[in-house]
Amino acid sequence: MRIALGIHYDGTAFSGWQSQPHGNTVQQALERALREFGGVDLPTTVAGRTDTGVHGLGQVVHFDTELDRAEFSWVRGVNAFLPKTVAVQWAQIVPDDFHARFTAFERTYFYVLYVHPVRSPLLDGRCGWLHTPLDLTAMQTAGQTLLGAHDFSAFRSSECQAKTPVKHMYAIDVAQQGNFYVFRFRANAFLHHMVRNIMGCLVAIGRGRQMPAWMADVLASRDRRHAAPTFMPDGLYLARVGYPERFALPEPNWAAWPFPMPWNA
Amino acid sequence: MRIALGIHYDGTAFSGWQSQPHGNTVQQALERALREFGGVDLPTTVAGRTDTGVHGLGQVVHFDTELDRAEFSWVRGVNAFLPKTVAVQWAQIVPDDFHARFTAFERTYFYVLYVHPVRSPLLDGRCGWLHTPLDLTAMQTAGQTLLGAHDFSAFRSSECQAKTPVKHMYAIDVAQQGNFYVFRFRANAFLHHMVRNIMGCLVAIGRGRQMPAWMADVLASRDRRHAAPTFMPDGLYLARVGYPERFALPEPNWAAWPFPMPWNA
Repeated sequence: MRIALGIHYDGTAFSGWQSQPHGNTVQQALERALREFGGVDLPTTVAGRTDTGVHGLGQVVHFDTELDRAEFSWVRGVNAFLPKTVAVQWAQIVPDDFHARFTAFERTYFYVLYVHPVRSPLLDGRCGWLHTPLDLTAMQTAGQTLLGAHDFSAFRSSECQAKTPVKHMYAIDVAQQGNFYVFRFRANAFLHHMVRNIMGCLVAIGRGRQMPAWMADVLASRDRRHAAPTFMPDGLYLARVGYPERFALPEPNWAAWPFPMPWNA
Repeated sequence: MRIALGIHYDGTAFSGWQSQPHGNTVQQALERALREFGGVDLPTTVAGRTDTGVHGLGQVVHFDTELDRAEFSWVRGVNAFLPKTVAVQWAQIVPDDFHARFTAFERTYFYVLYVHPVRSPLLDGRCGWLHTPLDLTAMQTAGQTLLGAHDFSAFRSSECQAKTPVKHMYAIDVAQQGNFYVFRFRANAFLHHMVRNIMGCLVAIGRGRQMPAWMADVLASRDRRHAAPTFMPDGLYLARVGYPERFALPEPNWAAWPFPMPWNA
């Protein structure tokens, strides 16, 4: 039987998602806990392989098992063996043709930025930080120029393993509430470092170092050297993974989201 | 000249405020950074010596120095030498009769509790967590029975060094927003573990294990053995320290507060 899990994690504590020989990764923490709970190796497949420092809120994995346990006992049981920095939020039995990565048709990332003259340890690791104010309208305008299907090579890290640089961007939204700026990125899929590279460009535009129209130039160049530096991972959250309705997966647990939430996820 | 600083810190990273021979404390981190910036030892006096795991949002210290620097350069300069887990929010020259501890006439603590069947790593260390719902009205009723001047020995840790167990409680408020419960405690001063011990009792009442009237019995007993266990420090914040208006100190920086804020600080 195939089981899907929804996962929260604090990416600050990990060298990203994917297992590494000498790494401390979320996948290794999760598979260790699954083995402790289940008594057998239960290799997982993930929806989105997040980077070092990137957080999970709507992350989804699947694995196959012969073990017959109630769904909530997967949650409670596996969590008992996980560090405080990772927790299963829900477990659901899914059909065998469900695949955490390949049946996902949409990913949503959130970025939370704290803008204040002084950094705050209360937000450290959970938000990006800038000490200068940003032009909200300029960032919103620039974001719109990336919508649609494009070759996103200009925002792609050299280590990216995706088969194609063409992705379909459905939405880029920016909102401000108090000293927080919240960014939402919704696409069919993302290249390696794509959100952080777009964030770098949006912030350059928000600070007035570039005009909004520059974003389209960067995109058209298909050349990573034209984009701004990769922005810090601290405020980046894999917020939601979209699957066909027939799988009827639970929504991510947004009850734990402490930041402004200007839109429905 | 005497200088006051407003400090934020993530208490999770520290063995409390006060310097210890082999401890990693906030005071040690701050005084190390002051020495690096100022080139001389600048011993500090603090408003509230918080415990291991308790966070600072409205913490205030003072120190005396001959160094003549602009106020904001104390902020920027000292922060450059502080770990990510501590940051000075403001600096202000104060009269010599200002004393971070002795001129403070009021302290406010906040406690943030996340109530959900499953814990979330996104909140780990920053909020307490309970998996069972709480009776808001019962907790509000019980809190009211502690208002006024009382001998709070029932909520005092055996390690408390305060001269008197009599404190004046001005307000205990409880509010709920989504899955967060926020508690506010305002008193002239607090005994060691007093907020966490009252929290333990409020939660016992909120869970229906005790009636609201039990709180007054515990208080009247003056006996620590009658109160509930000390509640976890994770969601506890020293939120504000009140000084006479003539010192005109800045308000704490609440811009960084990501949780519900049902009242003015």
